[in-house]
Amino acid sequence: MRLSTYFMPTLKETPAEAQIVSHRLMLRAGMIRQSSAGIYSWLPLGLKVLKNIEQVVREEQNAINCHEVLMPTIQSADLWRQSGRYDDYGPEMLRVSDRHGRDMLYGPTNEEQITEIFANSIRSYRDVPQLLYHIQWKFRDEVRPRFGIMRGREFLMKDAYSFDLDKEGAQNSYNKMFVSYLKTYERLGLKAIPMAADTGPIGGDMSHEFLILAETGESEIACHNECLNNNWLKDVDADSNLGKIVHTFTEKYAATDEMRDEKTERALGSNLITARGIEVGHIFYFGTKYSSKLGAVVTGPNGEEITVEMGSYGIGVSRLVGAIIEACHDDRGIIWPETVTPYKVGLINLRHDDDNCTNACDNMYSLLKDAGIEALYDDRDKKAGVKFADMDLIGLPWQIIIGPKSVKDGIVEFKNRKTGELVELSAAAALNLLKG
Amino acid sequence: MRLSTYFMPTLKETPAEAQIVSHRLMLRAGMIRQSSAGIYSWLPLGLKVLKNIEQVVREEQNAINCHEVLMPTIQSADLWRQSGRYDDYGPEMLRVSDRHGRDMLYGPTNEEQITEIFANSIRSYRDVPQLLYHIQWKFRDEVRPRFGIMRGREFLMKDAYSFDLDKEGAQNSYNKMFVSYLKTYERLGLKAIPMAADTGPIGGDMSHEFLILAETGESEIACHNECLNNNWLKDVDADSNLGKIVHTFTEKYAATDEMRDEKTERALGSNLITARGIEVGHIFYFGTKYSSKLGAVVTGPNGEEITVEMGSYGIGVSRLVGAIIEACHDDRGIIWPETVTPYKVGLINLRHDDDNCTNACDNMYSLLKDAGIEALYDDRDKKAGVKFADMDLIGLPWQIIIGPKSVKDGIVEFKNRKTGELVELSAAAALNLLKG
Repeated sequence: MRLSTYFMPTLKETPAEAQIVSHRLMLRAGMIRQSSAGIYSWLPLGLKVLKNIEQVVREEQNAINCHEVLMPTIQSADLWRQSGRYDDYGPEMLRVSDRHGRDMLYGPTNEEQITEIFANSIRSYRDVPQLLYHIQWKFRDEVRPRFGIMRGREFLMKDAYSFDLDKEGAQNSYNKMFVSYLKTYERLGLKAIPMAADTGPIGGDMSHEFLILAETGESEIACHNECLNNNWLKDVDADSNLGKIVHTFTEKYAATDEMRDEKTERALGSNLITARGIEVGHIFYFGTKYSSKLGAVVTGPNGEEITVEMGSYGIGVSRLVGAIIEACHDDRGIIWPETVTPYKVGLINLRHDDDNCTNACDNMYSLLKDAGIEALYDDRDKKAGVKFADMDLIGLPWQIIIGPKSVKDGIVEFKNRKTGELVELSAAAALNLLKG
Repeated sequence: MRLSTYFMPTLKETPAEAQIVSHRLMLRAGMIRQSSAGIYSWLPLGLKVLKNIEQVVREEQNAINCHEVLMPTIQSADLWRQSGRYDDYGPEMLRVSDRHGRDMLYGPTNEEQITEIFANSIRSYRDVPQLLYHIQWKFRDEVRPRFGIMRGREFLMKDAYSFDLDKEGAQNSYNKMFVSYLKTYERLGLKAIPMAADTGPIGGDMSHEFLILAETGESEIACHNECLNNNWLKDVDADSNLGKIVHTFTEKYAATDEMRDEKTERALGSNLITARGIEVGHIFYFGTKYSSKLGAVVTGPNGEEITVEMGSYGIGVSRLVGAIIEACHDDRGIIWPETVTPYKVGLINLRHDDDNCTNACDNMYSLLKDAGIEALYDDRDKKAGVKFADMDLIGLPWQIIIGPKSVKDGIVEFKNRKTGELVELSAAAALNLLKG
């Protein structure tokens, strides 16, 4: 992409309203703009990151044979009256009345809707278990939205739902999702810790939150250092000994601030880690809470009626954009993990008005394109300082810098955004490093 | 995908509420389920088609350097008060009040929002022209929603917006989009005709609707037969002689029912075609209607203020799913064009309980997977008749059928869904045909 024709309105000044670093950087990098309180528009650079995260989440859901559906944003209030949550939910639910005066709502979550779909579609135990998910915008009318897209009102969430014949099956679905979440976060370049959690308004018997570590995280956590050891994830396959693996994780001490236990922590000694974290996922097992109320019943092998056992599994997709920035930035800007970066490499032309320099850049850009490497090419009529600052700010993992001197020497400067390391290479060698 | 674990609840009976063929087939094929009046959930098969269409639309927008953004669904009423449309829009707009009593709305379109983003981001003539689009759910509270997703209330639309310095630039953006639309529909396997249209509530000076031909289409149209000649599209490049090409199209006679002209039609003689069509796109040029009210003003080369000239360009993405079915079906079900089909080929195991047969099917499935060909494998414990009917119903372009006899003969049956042609081939030969 040529920056001269792109839509990437970066800001030099830090907007006064932004209290946390991810919000500041997303505004400054031209990733988002506020539309109204807690509601944001995603500009091209931000949307690319959002889509990349969404795609990793999607692939990991598909990998456990969880099927993608898409439920609408506007739901009927009657459905929520069946579960009893219409009155329970409180002012966070955005309530709407349509032109015929029917009560509707903007879905804050989808337990009722997916249970209805299941109930209307599946009649036999033969078609169970089922795992279904969707990635859709939700609305929660926070009383005081803040921290940009980290705590917005309209947000993108992946929510999955499991349907099983019995508790053992439901536990297995829960375990599948548990391990899948750890894999998802690892692919996103994050260290995630699962923690036993309250079930809150979703209800249920078992629940874990997934927190990722970030120095600027919203909550303090304490855990056994083994909780950060994800090495064994590589070898696990979706259907084998999941219970054991989940147990390995959940038996270890891990607690959010309000749950910490001094005695246990003293016993852990040097194995104790304290850190700050950001919640980026939450999973629940809640049995027949919704299936019994919404009639999600199948016929068993002997003709008996079985009310299915359910769980739900959320990942905050838009929230992850902010969480990743909180975990991956420095004083100069964002540092994207390779899996989510909007472009793999930034190409900087230091002298837009020098034909040799521009030709060398155009050639490099063609080479990158031909190799299928997504590059953002700063071909603007701007000073070198502005280009360096913008490129560091937007955080692409690699930079190729070409100026009159490098053209003369037949090299390019190849920069690692994270370490700042700068090496001189031939264009071909730089290309090979990016391909590798 | 193995059908035994998939979520594809097909129906044998035709649902009584469905008045048109696309609605009937989408319900029967397990592509959608109604959530409430005019609001639908997309099940896995339907969602795959929706995503495929979305991706073709996206690629053709990207190809003309139109940049993807994503605006939220919930907008501030104040923004619409600035343009004067908040009061004008009437009961089709879903109006919402948030917990603080602020007037909000579910966007039926996005002229105001994109103009505000542009106005807050672009200050210099150097950064114009700009083409921006997004693919987002919209809500129009139709008084009588019907025809399934063809006339739903919550629907997915691609809307693009152009920003230019003068009328000539705006006309060029309009032309780019005009040609891009014709290419988009062609890639989707559709014959589209652009027709001069009223500008309606968007307003403006120039507008075209794009109708695709379908025997069951909602409106009758008449046109010069040359309007259906898209051959020249292949060679056009986005920046060359677009005006001439648009003119070639727009000078030809083409009229919806209420606009037909008897005298012109008589003169056309055998060049006149009458057909039925479905509207799947609408483009508008409306000058400074929104930019003047929302302050989308840039500084020109001599320091002068320029109010930008705008256009907007819509494609009904979810509507296209229905429109394609209206154009592509027979008595047995849907017939997907290759570009949008949810799976390229359906694999039918005629004898689930015969090990040789199942082994042959499993092998074929592996071959397809390894070749990167998306296959839906009917491995269910069902009768052959049910499998044939379901596979014809869901409309994958190709079928591979394997039964005990074909195993004995070392062949597979290879069926073209559209023509019904059935040939006997080796597994390898079938694979090669699908790869080609």
